Amino acid sequence: MTEQIIQQVITAWTAQNKNVADFFTKYSDDAYLKEVAPGRNRPIYLLGHLIASNDSMLPLFGIGEKLFPQYEAIFATSPDKTVADIPSVATLKQDWEKLNTTLSNHFSKMTAADWLSKHTAVSAEDFAKEPHRNKLNVLLGRVIHESYHRGQINLLLV
Amino acid sequence: MTEQIIQQVITAWTAQNKNVADFFTKYSDDAYLKEVAPGRNRPIYLLGHLIASNDSMLPLFGIGEKLFPQYEAIFATSPDKTVADIPSVATLKQDWEKLNTTLSNHFSKMTAADWLSKHTAVSAEDFAKEPHRNKLNVLLGRVIHESYHRGQINLLLV
Repeated sequence: MTEQIIQQVITAWTAQNKNVADFFTKYSDDAYLKEVAPGRNRPIYLLGHLIASNDSMLPLFGIGEKLFPQYEAIFATSPDKTVADIPSVATLKQDWEKLNTTLSNHFSKMTAADWLSKHTAVSAEDFAKEPHRNKLNVLLGRVIHESYHRGQINLLLV
Repeated sequence: MTEQIIQQVITAWTAQNKNVADFFTKYSDDAYLKEVAPGRNRPIYLLGHLIASNDSMLPLFGIGEKLFPQYEAIFATSPDKTVADIPSVATLKQDWEKLNTTLSNHFSKMTAADWLSKHTAVSAEDFAKEPHRNKLNVLLGRVIHESYHRGQINLLLV
C-alpha cells in the first residue's frame, strides 16, 4: 500500500511537469516575456522559478549537487524584472526536461523507506520529533507549489 | 507508514483550506468582486468553485449528499459572470468553513483501507485494473486543484 501511495504522488508530480512543459510549447518564445497579469511575474520567470524549486530536491534528497545552482539567485531570491541577463525560454525549456528526467531516474530507484527518511535540511533531533519532514513531504510540497504557479501562467493572454 | 503518508496529504489539504480562508479575511468583501486579472475569474467565483470541488468529495467518498448541490451549476458548469444571482462572499465563507469541517470530521475516521478503496465514480471492474483511482487520489487531486486557483486569487490587486 505504501508503495502505491508514493507512486501516486510521483505520478502527480510528473503530470504537473508535463503540463508546464506543454504550456511552453503553445506559443512562440516571445509570448512568455509578457506578464501573466499587469505588474505580475512573466512565464519565463516562473519557469526558471520552478526549475530552481525542483532542482533543490537534488541536495535535499542527498542525491547530489544542483544542476542549475545559478538559478536560485536569478529566479528565487530575486524578483522578476530585477536581473538583467536571464536565460532564454529555449534554454529554460531544455533545462526543465533535463532536470526532471534526472530527478525521475533517481525517484524510480527510491524505496518506501527512502521516501520516508529525513531530507538533508532537517536535523536528526528535529526529525525524531517531526517524522513528517521526510522526502515524500518535500515532493508533495513541490507538486502543490508547481500547481500554484501553473494556475498563474495559464492566465497569460497572448 | 501508510497512515503517516495519508495524514501528510490530509494535512496538505487542511493547510490549503486555511490559506484560502485567510485570503478571504484580508480585504473587505467588495474586493473579492474584482477580477484577479483583466477578463479573468473573480475571487468570489473561485471560492464558490472550490466549495463545489470539495463538496463533491461527499458523494465520491460515499459519505453522503453534497451540502451545496446548487453550487455545481453556478460555480463549476457555468463560467464566471454568466449567472446573475450568486451567493455573497459572507455566505460563501461560512459555507467553506462548514463544508471543510464536515469533511475533516469524516476524514479523521477513515482507515488506510478506506482511503485506498475505490471512489463511487469508478466501477469495480475499472478499479480492479486501475487501483490508483482511490479516495486518496481524489483528495490529492483536490489539493493540487485548490493550489492552482490559490495562485490565481493571490494575483488580485486591491
